[in-house]
Amino acid sequence: MPMGERRIFWVIGGDRRQAALVRALQEDGHEVHACALEQGVEESLREESLRGIEKAHCVILPLPAGDGVFVNAPLSAQKPAFEEVLDAMSPGQVLCGGMVSCAWKQEAEQRGITLTDYFDREELAVSNAVPSSEGAIQIAMEELPITLHGARILILGYGRLGKVLARQLHGLGARVTVSARKYADLAWIRAMGWEAVSSHDLTGILEGRDLILNTVPALILDREALGKVDPGCMVIDLASKPGGVDFEAAEELGVKTVWALGLPGKAAPVTAGLAIRDAIYNILSELGESL
Amino acid sequence: MPMGERRIFWVIGGDRRQAALVRALQEDGHEVHACALEQGVEESLREESLRGIEKAHCVILPLPAGDGVFVNAPLSAQKPAFEEVLDAMSPGQVLCGGMVSCAWKQEAEQRGITLTDYFDREELAVSNAVPSSEGAIQIAMEELPITLHGARILILGYGRLGKVLARQLHGLGARVTVSARKYADLAWIRAMGWEAVSSHDLTGILEGRDLILNTVPALILDREALGKVDPGCMVIDLASKPGGVDFEAAEELGVKTVWALGLPGKAAPVTAGLAIRDAIYNILSELGESL
Amino acid sequence: MPMGERRIFWVIGGDRRQAALVRALQEDGHEVHACALEQGVEESLREESLRGIEKAHCVILPLPAGDGVFVNAPLSAQKPAFEEVLDAMSPGQVLCGGMVSCAWKQEAEQRGITLTDYFDREELAVSNAVPSSEGAIQIAMEELPITLHGARILILGYGRLGKVLARQLHGLGARVTVSARKYADLAWIRAMGWEAVSSHDLTGILEGRDLILNTVPALILDREALGKVDPGCMVIDLASKPGGVDFEAAEELGVKTVWALGLPGKAAPVTAGLAIRDAIYNILSELGESL
Amino acid sequence: MPMGERRIFWVIGGDRRQAALVRALQEDGHEVHACALEQGVEESLREESLRGIEKAHCVILPLPAGDGVFVNAPLSAQKPAFEEVLDAMSPGQVLCGGMVSCAWKQEAEQRGITLTDYFDREELAVSNAVPSSEGAIQIAMEELPITLHGARILILGYGRLGKVLARQLHGLGARVTVSARKYADLAWIRAMGWEAVSSHDLTGILEGRDLILNTVPALILDREALGKVDPGCMVIDLASKPGGVDFEAAEELGVKTVWALGLPGKAAPVTAGLAIRDAIYNILSELGESL
Repeated sequence: MPMGERRIFWVIGGDRRQAALVRALQEDGHEVHACALEQGVEESLREESLRGIEKAHCVILPLPAGDGVFVNAPLSAQKPAFEEVLDAMSPGQVLCGGMVSCAWKQEAEQRGITLTDYFDREELAVSNAVPSSEGAIQIAMEELPITLHGARILILGYGRLGKVLARQLHGLGARVTVSARKYADLAWIRAMGWEAVSSHDLTGILEGRDLILNTVPALILDREALGKVDPGCMVIDLASKPGGVDFEAAEELGVKTVWALGLPGKAAPVTAGLAIRDAIYNILSELGESL
Repeated sequence: MPMGERRIFWVIGGDRRQAALVRALQEDGHEVHACALEQGVEESLREESLRGIEKAHCVILPLPAGDGVFVNAPLSAQKPAFEEVLDAMSPGQVLCGGMVSCAWKQEAEQRGITLTDYFDREELAVSNAVPSSEGAIQIAMEELPITLHGARILILGYGRLGKVLARQLHGLGARVTVSARKYADLAWIRAMGWEAVSSHDLTGILEGRDLILNTVPALILDREALGKVDPGCMVIDLASKPGGVDFEAAEELGVKTVWALGLPGKAAPVTAGLAIRDAIYNILSELGESL
Repeated sequence: MPMGERRIFWVIGGDRRQAALVRALQEDGHEVHACALEQGVEESLREESLRGIEKAHCVILPLPAGDGVFVNAPLSAQKPAFEEVLDAMSPGQVLCGGMVSCAWKQEAEQRGITLTDYFDREELAVSNAVPSSEGAIQIAMEELPITLHGARILILGYGRLGKVLARQLHGLGARVTVSARKYADLAWIRAMGWEAVSSHDLTGILEGRDLILNTVPALILDREALGKVDPGCMVIDLASKPGGVDFEAAEELGVKTVWALGLPGKAAPVTAGLAIRDAIYNILSELGESL
Repeated sequence: MPMGERRIFWVIGGDRRQAALVRALQEDGHEVHACALEQGVEESLREESLRGIEKAHCVILPLPAGDGVFVNAPLSAQKPAFEEVLDAMSPGQVLCGGMVSCAWKQEAEQRGITLTDYFDREELAVSNAVPSSEGAIQIAMEELPITLHGARILILGYGRLGKVLARQLHGLGARVTVSARKYADLAWIRAMGWEAVSSHDLTGILEGRDLILNTVPALILDREALGKVDPGCMVIDLASKPGGVDFEAAEELGVKTVWALGLPGKAAPVTAGLAIRDAIYNILSELGESL
């Protein structure tokens, strides 16, 4: 996966994922400058100013890139503003970031700089499903008094995360059931060897489970549904906001529930950083091809 | 999966898949009439004429449905013509078939009968990937003097069949590598635990294999590529016509090659018949919903 | 697995495993009395004295059973003495416990009571390998900044725990290598699909790993061996006392090490409790047969 | 696995396994002479007489080694007598063979030659379980009209072959149940993730299966048991003579039965030959250590 030529990268801000990204780029033989990341990278790579950034083949903002004014920099005492970064760059340079706002994209474009969002890359979303799945499994192991081996587990939804969860949980020895709406997805679930249930009607599929993992970003586990969950069954909600569980009802009904967000960066920041690196290589490769 | 109400089915022609379909429909509690399938079904279900077909909730033609004039009926001494079937049916009745020609569709439509092709159903294509994969594995077991456990296997293409092959061969203990073009597919291959290689350049990925399974319907394994295959490595081509291997070159170069087509019906006709049943239930369910 | 007849069980002391055992016995339809376990079981099952214990078909002490004088009772304000239990029982009654001292066995025998150690049962040791393995996996997930999927993991030893660890870690997508001494074990490791390395010489097998799990109860990872471990590689020692790692050397060399003991009761007390129940059923079944 | 030093091997007689053994020894850098194997090995390695055999570090007889007088040599027009081989060898030389009779062992010993039976090696028995399992799977794929994926399969016995069968069939997606007698084996079956059933009573465990694989060398599937097998269920007997199935009763009852013997050499002679090579290396290594 390492690119053939030695390139110059600037990494601005970020968490442990960006720190891992810096190390990985360096190990691949590139010249790397890290700014506003001083608690994450070794001294020789740290930059206190943006001087020299105009020579970068690629400038990398974190994931998420930042809010209205500032680049996200939790591992730094610095607070770099997005404008500063743009000011220091030259038109035509490559700038990447994750979960970038439209405002920032427009601002960059006005300066002649294309800001590419690596979080939009399908391959990154796929790669991130693995640390998300392991993060969810870790939570389940921590919270449940039974082994996942032999546990009766229902996964709601057969998207990216559902697929990886099913595979890993089956690999641990769990009895995996997956729900989906589409006939083709139900056929896939069976072809992979899991039990398939249609999610058109939740009645009858929530009972008899030790663990329910929701991956569908819609309020599926409402008060009525939660009322059908077995006592002792745990619910882990992996859906992004607004989530798929009525948490208030869950608490009232005594259903143990964890809403797990941002798992890749928490559970496996190094793996998540390598996935960002791969996405950036792919972006650069495509930009190179399109020249 | 069985439908709630008892329905009347007529099954016309077909091979062991249709015979299995007839049995499965009957076991699900439906009324089944089989015509031109006398070597495949028990006597009590056989019909010698099409009398009564106008009461059918669903008339099922085989896969493939047939050629210009006749319905495909290899398990019968009869030779039912498609026109005969249409003549005996009433407008508004449901007619299904697999790999139906445009001409037949139009002919049916002119009589006010919608002819639905169940082979177009995504869920059937997914389900068929399993018997196709097992058929290919059976051929590999028969032909190779080594076990698949421990064998170094390259799968070209990560479509439906590639996915199931990778999973089953890994399950047998093979060392599985899968090639794909798209970044997201390569990420999926890795997320599933197989080794991923880009198919942009075949150089260097064909060497060191004991078995190469092609699923890509394009002439990938041409003379040049075949020249790189290790002595003793076997090639199984699973791509539909015109196939993915230059068979002439393979013979000249001494590369053992098998072109395996129509595997579901050969390797596991009963499983393939059940998949057709499920697709037909889904078609009927959708037609019912759309009323 | 539930036994045919309704029996009377007394459970004295214990942790969450015994609490789970009480519930499981009750769900199987038996009459259960719990003593010195009041924080673990519902009120209706609690006994404040040992009155009535002479009617028990089986009296169950915890795991570990206790020290010189007292039965182990961490979930209770009571402190039952082993002598008290014996005093309340009648000769010929069945008494079980886990990790029972020789002194206690002799004491029981002098009273005409056979004290059977369920921790000596092979099937319990096998069953316990599963929660031990999951406990180790949980620790690895918590401590490592990478996913176990794709991680290069070395398991030292192919006994009960090594076998289950290999299977579960492989199931998560890890690249598993297992070391063993005996030729037959090495053949087994290969037959299961893992990479096998001989442990006759550790040189060359410790390098290039992200995680090393030791299951061998001997000082394998001494200072010299630890010096060969990659930076960032984590060591989890699962060997019972005295352990398999020179922890002092590990700390000096900066090798992150966790010594994980008693995992079944910590990671999955309910599963561990069910395994105790099964062992006790088997003991009773064998006693019944031998009558 | 290749041994450090270049050694001289003589291989006498044998089938495709010995032919593969010859090639493998040569690829490992040894000097190899093949006698009575001319249809299996290239010309340059063939020997027409035993001249020079006295320089061999190891002389290898086939598996099975042969009957009363002659070495087994199905790939040859020659018929070497065992006595001839002994006559040509010198006392102290190493001689190996598979399934060697006591008579031959004694005869060799009288000449001062130790004849070691590599078929007695546990690691060879383990390694052979893999080609046996794949041979059985191939037969099942050829004979059954359903896919093994999703099939309800019962494996009788959890010895070497049962373990590998369970793993590979599960890997294909089958629903695997394994029977055993001992509590510890039942615990192992569950710990591996298969369904466990006690074989103390076959009643109730034979029903509802699509395939039954017997690995127990005792008449388990007698007339009464076969009467309980579902119509359409297939039985593959993998037990060595006298076998575990009453074949006469099976035929009368219409239960499709295959008695599969000698699978490693048939299904995967090259893999089986490599396993013999490994066993011979281990024998030589142990003989070397004991000097």
